[in-house]
Amino acid sequence: MMQTPLTMTQMLERAERYFPKKQVVSRTASGIQRLTYKEIGQRTRKLSDALTKLGVEKGDKVGTLAWNHHRHLEAYFAIPCMGAVLHTINIRLSPQHISYIINHAEDKVLLIDSDILPLIEKCKDELKTVKAFIIMTDEKEVPQTTLSPVYHYETLLAEANPEFQYTTQINENDPAGMCYTSATTGNPKGVVYSHRGIFLHSMAIGLADTLALSEKDVALAVVPMFHANAWGMPFAGVWFGTTLVLPGPNFTPKLLAELIQQEKVTITAGVPTIWMGLLKELEEGSYDLSSLRGILCGGSAAPKGMIKTFEQKYNIPFMHGYGMTETSPLAVFSSLKSYQQDLDYEERLELRAKQGVLVPGLEMKILGQNGEVAWNGTEMGELCLRGPWIASEYYQDERTKDAFHDGWLHTGDVATIDEEGFVKIVDRTKDLIKSGGEWISSVDLENALMAHEAVFEAAVVAVPHERWLERPVACVVLKDAYKGKTTKEELFEFLQPQFAKWWIPDDILFIEEVPKTSVGKFLKMALRDQVQKEVSQKG
Amino acid sequence: MMQTPLTMTQMLERAERYFPKKQVVSRTASGIQRLTYKEIGQRTRKLSDALTKLGVEKGDKVGTLAWNHHRHLEAYFAIPCMGAVLHTINIRLSPQHISYIINHAEDKVLLIDSDILPLIEKCKDELKTVKAFIIMTDEKEVPQTTLSPVYHYETLLAEANPEFQYTTQINENDPAGMCYTSATTGNPKGVVYSHRGIFLHSMAIGLADTLALSEKDVALAVVPMFHANAWGMPFAGVWFGTTLVLPGPNFTPKLLAELIQQEKVTITAGVPTIWMGLLKELEEGSYDLSSLRGILCGGSAAPKGMIKTFEQKYNIPFMHGYGMTETSPLAVFSSLKSYQQDLDYEERLELRAKQGVLVPGLEMKILGQNGEVAWNGTEMGELCLRGPWIASEYYQDERTKDAFHDGWLHTGDVATIDEEGFVKIVDRTKDLIKSGGEWISSVDLENALMAHEAVFEAAVVAVPHERWLERPVACVVLKDAYKGKTTKEELFEFLQPQFAKWWIPDDILFIEEVPKTSVGKFLKMALRDQVQKEVSQKG
Repeated sequence: MMQTPLTMTQMLERAERYFPKKQVVSRTASGIQRLTYKEIGQRTRKLSDALTKLGVEKGDKVGTLAWNHHRHLEAYFAIPCMGAVLHTINIRLSPQHISYIINHAEDKVLLIDSDILPLIEKCKDELKTVKAFIIMTDEKEVPQTTLSPVYHYETLLAEANPEFQYTTQINENDPAGMCYTSATTGNPKGVVYSHRGIFLHSMAIGLADTLALSEKDVALAVVPMFHANAWGMPFAGVWFGTTLVLPGPNFTPKLLAELIQQEKVTITAGVPTIWMGLLKELEEGSYDLSSLRGILCGGSAAPKGMIKTFEQKYNIPFMHGYGMTETSPLAVFSSLKSYQQDLDYEERLELRAKQGVLVPGLEMKILGQNGEVAWNGTEMGELCLRGPWIASEYYQDERTKDAFHDGWLHTGDVATIDEEGFVKIVDRTKDLIKSGGEWISSVDLENALMAHEAVFEAAVVAVPHERWLERPVACVVLKDAYKGKTTKEELFEFLQPQFAKWWIPDDILFIEEVPKTSVGKFLKMALRDQVQKEVSQKG
Repeated sequence: MMQTPLTMTQMLERAERYFPKKQVVSRTASGIQRLTYKEIGQRTRKLSDALTKLGVEKGDKVGTLAWNHHRHLEAYFAIPCMGAVLHTINIRLSPQHISYIINHAEDKVLLIDSDILPLIEKCKDELKTVKAFIIMTDEKEVPQTTLSPVYHYETLLAEANPEFQYTTQINENDPAGMCYTSATTGNPKGVVYSHRGIFLHSMAIGLADTLALSEKDVALAVVPMFHANAWGMPFAGVWFGTTLVLPGPNFTPKLLAELIQQEKVTITAGVPTIWMGLLKELEEGSYDLSSLRGILCGGSAAPKGMIKTFEQKYNIPFMHGYGMTETSPLAVFSSLKSYQQDLDYEERLELRAKQGVLVPGLEMKILGQNGEVAWNGTEMGELCLRGPWIASEYYQDERTKDAFHDGWLHTGDVATIDEEGFVKIVDRTKDLIKSGGEWISSVDLENALMAHEAVFEAAVVAVPHERWLERPVACVVLKDAYKGKTTKEELFEFLQPQFAKWWIPDDILFIEEVPKTSVGKFLKMALRDQVQKEVSQKG
């Protein structure tokens, strides 16, 4: 067979050649813009030309601090296709962490949304490698800024060549992108994506048995493009000629519902908190979301109650997946097997609330204390992954050895696997509650609580206990209509028939909001500290 | 990203681990057999163990002369997973060609269906490298044979280890399989498939925008497993946990119709002649084929009339693709774009009768006399392909240089490409009719004739002409009910409004059968000789 490399250049070219009329729908500060793939292709080539003129060479890192919009999409291809490295920076990190990762990655140029400028201005004196700041804005001029030298994205493009040719020799293992992921403690850790990894991951999400992303889709990427490549949707979407919908800055549940209705979105992807918000919006407003063939939920486990409400009340099918920044991200996807289609709804829901089956192309094992766990749905172990779109290290980071050994990524996620090979994430190793030597899954308790009609969000954390070492305590956010009405006794009664006695939390606290990480996951550490203070004050 | 190789071992393992209950339905000489993937996995490992004991080592070639059944499927994985090379031999070739390719590939062991034994006995004295013959049969004993040494497949398996471990280090570029393809003249030419090529091609046929092969499918592989890997269905099907239906030896259209009905087949693949036969059967018998979501047709262009009858009369959707032994084979697939769905049926049919759009992962160009042809649907050129599942050479063959140069495979197929990027194969370079300096597409004329209700098959060939150098003559096989009734005048009248005057054939000859190649393609060369004799006798 030919030794042609698996690179992103041919992914862009396929959109340009075969789908020039298809569109990208981009929401920016000034409203909705529609660009065809022909235009996106020309603008992408212009951006590569402009970056070349600014001195960006093969292997250089170019950072982006941006929302989901067409300019960010252009950067997604312009940077890797010219042989440079697309470094997407999580704008929700602290200024300290942001300057750390820009310096650590040695970014040469930064592409910045104008509303994110203040964040970078705060840390500009710390930046050691950045030679140019390019401002992405709909305005004719760049805003007043202390950064220097600054360039106007559209002005650079106006002067650039729309037929710029990608002649740099790219090896498929060359870096194409990178993304830093938060650590439990200390600075974020960097993951480097190769052309080969992105190519193969894109194929994987086009498979009929996973997302089945297709030219026929209108795909709304809700998950941020600064977080695990928006789960790969922009890469695969361009390749397949999918209509991409990019929701831009500061979107609300109302805006998402409107976009889905107006653009006839067929598929969308994001974390559970997004979908809880959308659900709240659907209960208040009136929308026609019948174009949706699926909502992909990942990042954290989707509560069963939420899946059920979407499906039974709104007739919107849910898809459940699992992955992380280190896994590109898709690794496990919940697609029922043909012979499971005949199960009744509750049994199917039970399976579909699990993260699912290993995606073709990867290998998996779940390591308990005595090697691989039994496939019985109860024995817990750490999920380990291997494959061509799984990271092999943290970029120039000592902590590589904690997660990568024996040729496997040790994810830090604790899972069970049932007789059918369905993986269920039960907790993070660090969030597990070990009561009297036995593990309690905080996720199971949370999902059970969130299935109660009064509960908007719930998080369960461990508190120290003299006898059992650790015991669970639940923190519950009630829906507005139920505040001051639903009691903790009602919730205890609701939980009791569902769990062993020792799983039932010692207490249920009503709180206003569950603290979340920059990517919308429950921030258990912060909550745990807060709860432990409350409990010890009571005691 | 991890440097894990793309190999077939993990494809087999995924079926064993995640789909052990799913089935392979295999028709052999003694009837239908059903094996689970658990059983297939154990038997595959046993076969690898048995071959190891017979001295097969990494890189050794093992030939198969077999129909589509479970033992052939076991060989499909057992041989590559142990690091050896699966050489599928086209049993429809002449004994001279068969002994040539076995010697040329240097096959060490042959796996042979018992009914194919006489073919090998004929050429046994020519074979220089074969050390063992393994007979695949449902019988307890191997039949009487002049071959030696012979082994009984099931006896070998009965003594082998079902937990044989694949420990051989395989590089993804190592050879996994090979297949010889007929040349216009001379001996067949060998194509070598790598693990990487098979892995990526399998992903490609699982994409939503191509075949969308899935765990949920019941896939009937009609195309022979000795021909271009049965278009990759066995490889991808096992990986995805698809229910595979293998129709065995000497099947008839009636048997295919019964299998589809009985096994609730969802997808099937084969050459046009197969589907013409099935159509005839459907017109005579009564079957429920409503389980079919698609028939994939390739190898030759599917006549528009046939597509229309399947879809409008029998409500069976047709899928059109293009590939060849050198391309693994899928290279082009006809899937309408989202905005083409609104066209009326005839316009959609027109597009779907073309071979379609380039599959993700490959690159294509159509080379005319002055470089790439215009995308106007009329300019003709030679289709050239490049990519990781396209062959880079013919195995140890001087003729490599004829087809592979400048990094591209020059397919020898003449095509047009329209404004939307839809490729239409208009002819083989060698079969093109050049009348007065202008090309006439024999395929277009054939399709037009086959759309006539009286016509079963039609082939158009060139005959020498004093003035125009070449002129087309049509050879038509009438359906039984129309024989002796339909006249050539009627057919001329039918053609005239559809083509320019100079495209109309000089003559229409009624014949009993169109001669075909070993894989069911029209054998134009033979027909041309026959027609030229007839025409010159008349003259």
